[in-house]
Amino acid sequence: MYRTHTCGELRLADVKKEVTLCGWIQKIRHLGGMIFIDLRDRYGITQLAFNHELKPELCEQVEKMGREWVIQATGIVIERYSKNPNIPTGEIEIDVQKVNVLNEAITPPFTIEDVSDGGDELRMKYRYLDLRRNPVKNNIIFRHKLGLEIRKYLNGQGFLEIETPFLVNSTPEGARDFLVPSRMNPGEFYALPQSPQTLKQLLMISGMDRYFQIVRCFRDEDLRADRQPEFTQIDCEMSFIEQEDILNLFEGLVKHIFKTFKNIDLEPIERITWADAMKYYGSDKPDARFGMRFVELNDLLQHKEFKVFNEAELVVGIKVDGCGNYSRKQLDGLVEFVKSPHVGAGGLVYILCNADGTFKSSVDKFYDQEDLKAVAVRCEANPGDLILIMSGKAMKTRTQLSALRLEMGNRLGLRKAGEYKVLWVVDFPLLEWDEETQRFYAMHHPFTAPKPEHEDMLESNPGAVNANAYDLVINGSEVGGGSIRIHDPELQKRMFKALNFTEEQAQSQFGFLIDAFRFGAPPHGGIAFGFDRLCAVLSDCDSIRDFIAFPKNNSGRDTMLPAPTPIAQAQLDELNIDIKIPQNAK
Amino acid sequence: MYRTHTCGELRLADVKKEVTLCGWIQKIRHLGGMIFIDLRDRYGITQLAFNHELKPELCEQVEKMGREWVIQATGIVIERYSKNPNIPTGEIEIDVQKVNVLNEAITPPFTIEDVSDGGDELRMKYRYLDLRRNPVKNNIIFRHKLGLEIRKYLNGQGFLEIETPFLVNSTPEGARDFLVPSRMNPGEFYALPQSPQTLKQLLMISGMDRYFQIVRCFRDEDLRADRQPEFTQIDCEMSFIEQEDILNLFEGLVKHIFKTFKNIDLEPIERITWADAMKYYGSDKPDARFGMRFVELNDLLQHKEFKVFNEAELVVGIKVDGCGNYSRKQLDGLVEFVKSPHVGAGGLVYILCNADGTFKSSVDKFYDQEDLKAVAVRCEANPGDLILIMSGKAMKTRTQLSALRLEMGNRLGLRKAGEYKVLWVVDFPLLEWDEETQRFYAMHHPFTAPKPEHEDMLESNPGAVNANAYDLVINGSEVGGGSIRIHDPELQKRMFKALNFTEEQAQSQFGFLIDAFRFGAPPHGGIAFGFDRLCAVLSDCDSIRDFIAFPKNNSGRDTMLPAPTPIAQAQLDELNIDIKIPQNAK
Repeated sequence: MYRTHTCGELRLADVKKEVTLCGWIQKIRHLGGMIFIDLRDRYGITQLAFNHELKPELCEQVEKMGREWVIQATGIVIERYSKNPNIPTGEIEIDVQKVNVLNEAITPPFTIEDVSDGGDELRMKYRYLDLRRNPVKNNIIFRHKLGLEIRKYLNGQGFLEIETPFLVNSTPEGARDFLVPSRMNPGEFYALPQSPQTLKQLLMISGMDRYFQIVRCFRDEDLRADRQPEFTQIDCEMSFIEQEDILNLFEGLVKHIFKTFKNIDLEPIERITWADAMKYYGSDKPDARFGMRFVELNDLLQHKEFKVFNEAELVVGIKVDGCGNYSRKQLDGLVEFVKSPHVGAGGLVYILCNADGTFKSSVDKFYDQEDLKAVAVRCEANPGDLILIMSGKAMKTRTQLSALRLEMGNRLGLRKAGEYKVLWVVDFPLLEWDEETQRFYAMHHPFTAPKPEHEDMLESNPGAVNANAYDLVINGSEVGGGSIRIHDPELQKRMFKALNFTEEQAQSQFGFLIDAFRFGAPPHGGIAFGFDRLCAVLSDCDSIRDFIAFPKNNSGRDTMLPAPTPIAQAQLDELNIDIKIPQNAK
Repeated sequence: MYRTHTCGELRLADVKKEVTLCGWIQKIRHLGGMIFIDLRDRYGITQLAFNHELKPELCEQVEKMGREWVIQATGIVIERYSKNPNIPTGEIEIDVQKVNVLNEAITPPFTIEDVSDGGDELRMKYRYLDLRRNPVKNNIIFRHKLGLEIRKYLNGQGFLEIETPFLVNSTPEGARDFLVPSRMNPGEFYALPQSPQTLKQLLMISGMDRYFQIVRCFRDEDLRADRQPEFTQIDCEMSFIEQEDILNLFEGLVKHIFKTFKNIDLEPIERITWADAMKYYGSDKPDARFGMRFVELNDLLQHKEFKVFNEAELVVGIKVDGCGNYSRKQLDGLVEFVKSPHVGAGGLVYILCNADGTFKSSVDKFYDQEDLKAVAVRCEANPGDLILIMSGKAMKTRTQLSALRLEMGNRLGLRKAGEYKVLWVVDFPLLEWDEETQRFYAMHHPFTAPKPEHEDMLESNPGAVNANAYDLVINGSEVGGGSIRIHDPELQKRMFKALNFTEEQAQSQFGFLIDAFRFGAPPHGGIAFGFDRLCAVLSDCDSIRDFIAFPKNNSGRDTMLPAPTPIAQAQLDELNIDIKIPQNAK
């Protein structure tokens, strides 16, 4: 062992001990006749002291060293004159007798400090240096702890962690697969799993009863910000249960996590139907840390000559407390926001609720004070509040108003770090109509069970069928989702039919699972949590990237390794494939 | 919840309770006026009882059911008349009031019993049924427990589990990579990692200090029996340590595992050098549960006219206790064994040590009693023992005699299940000479550190340099292996040179790591255990396949899913690749 202690553990009680520490030089300071080094390792920082007068040769040696050199220092623990209350080792320092250079270091391309001068690109290329920084390092440590705690909890609930294969079959329904050519089986390909969905259902058929896995999943999608081509899921499945059992069991897990890592006793998790989430928040993953619930206003605002409202499918508003004094400039700023490409609305109507009980709106031409008052009453607005109204096609308008709602939440500081609002969103629609292909798609996946009371409508009114499906939402982030699965082969057949599958198509894509169901499938269901996302949300971070040791950029590249890269022709030959890049994009 | 209890938990104390159980019908028996069902779930079997006279309709319903149907039964726990001491629930049964069919089942293609009539192929195709069988199910449960226990232990030792990426870069040195075409980067490929070796070294450079991961690894090799294209490794790395520290720390882990799962207090793990392992066992993974150590006999047997021995580089024997009475037929059997293709020896010389102190050998023509006695003395053979001697090129002969030694161990029952002999094999050679390509290859990998005292020979006598590398061997299986890594950039350069790499080649293949070393690399080293193998060895099983939920066959196929498969042209087009199968094999 190169060291007797780490850089995080020495205290006053250790004074007079001879110790050997190893680590990286965080900082070198010259102060009077002394040199001080902040020596850093994973566990902390300890100050090394070198006295010019008493140890001139040692100091000469130290003066050649630089930031991020790796050294080994032996000396005696002594009490510091000027203590540093900001670090746990701040009461002591090491009076160094001997120092060894274990490795030199060239100057890092950015500072290894909590707030670094490295841009994103540089940080990713030198990720191993970025990981030396406390914020990133602590994220990785948190992830480790969270993972282990979840494993222990689920083990305690009788779940078995069962590893499923990564070289599986391609299932074109859903997102795009990453494919792996098989050398041993020329012309054939494996796929990397988008999730172990079908495999965990097979495990239920095998009687494993309670399964989980913290497992990598792969989706070859065009990457939006904060998506990764490989990501980690806490994947769970249970047999002989109903939706209520799953919600309760995993509510227990969520509460345990909050208690363990946040010391927060979570309230019982509120449930909201998908329909209500859309109606009141315009989103299936509402940030419920603040109100500003949607108020529908069609009946109050479609009786005058304002064509924009009259032609709209939905007229809907939010009340913003205490913003009735917004200036023209501030209001223009909001209009600009909703017109920006990522919101894409045509405009915004506002009503300022004046202190004197009158109203001022951008549509005063069309509506009188009585009209505006009726809106204010419905919105429960008081003098001094602001009402923001949008209109158009119902779903689109909801989405746009949701963006505005979140923006107002940000501006007013209502989305507070350290405050958590957890929701179960339930009763999702089973199917989603796609205008382009003129067919229904499964909102979750083709194995999701309809609500028993809606089964009758599967043929007559498929769009109205709700599913036994649920999402866990924390502070506006979808952290988990799952469903009860279909276990009745007849119902599964009807589901495939609703999805426009011929029997042949169903058999060719999911035959292995359909066949398995014939050998005695138990009722079952499950849930999967996004582990990267969970880490980020619990740390009040927006980016999952900072919780992944070696993430990829938005082009799916690891710029550090680097990957992907061109490969040798011999490798292509062995795999029986050729590269064929079209000259003109199709 | 569909049930109040599992099929494994009811006892006499539960008598008179109303319970609901769910599970699969293991067996239906008709006995007098009764029908009995063995209902099975993951947790056990409980007997359901149906009385013809009292519940005629219920019995009518039950009579339509068959093996592996999934049912839900409600009834009262009662004491059994004829108890079954073989199962924990054997003192009670359920007097069933009501039964629900949750799912029917067609007849399984093999019996779901501890000893099944299913062949390997059938078991793999219907793996979800195979997993219902106790032996396979228990393997999967054991794997889960072992994995969690290892995670807890390493966490307790300050290791962080850090997930490394699966979409990495191809490193042609070593085994063959599985490749993944990148759609977003046409003509470029990711590789699936053969192990996180370079990534864990980067984590050490990042200061993570102690890393582990239970992680899938991928090798596209021609599969020998009991190899899998994807397998799981317990991958570990530590900083600021020496070989001794790693051996001690992981000896602690191994002891903890044996204590926890086998209730065995393991002796301190014996260490043997690679050279001694080869000399005394002819193998770098000796099964040391029994002796039969090799005895070298060149000096005793090369002085007569027996050309076979005189021309041999090595004449070496083993003594087999108590087999001096082997018949001619038995001895011929042994000769046949060593001549079989998988051993490939030319022949075998035996010496029977007769009860009267005389000797009978297959080379009596050449050697007199004195010669044979000298051999017997060296081998410490007593009257009644058998000496088996082989000869030829040294390494080849050792390997052949090792096969014979293991065979004799098997025949004599010396390789006892439930008995464990754990070894550290140390002081591996750093390099291996390859006759075909006329160059040295790294025995472990190019980052393995030479023994400091051998560094000087790296240029002058590379073949004689030993490495700070070690393997953990249990009962003749290599369960783990690792090394101290090079952390000095100069030494790494010399190593690449010894491996015949130009500086450009080294930079193009491992540039990301070489560059990283310039920013301050700590001394570090690690070890990786084969998790599948560890599970198998601890369970006295030969096959790792039975410890993998969904394994692949020897052609790398998952016959259940199935995978791999042909894919759609559209998918190929998106990936910018074409299939090109040569008409004639090259």
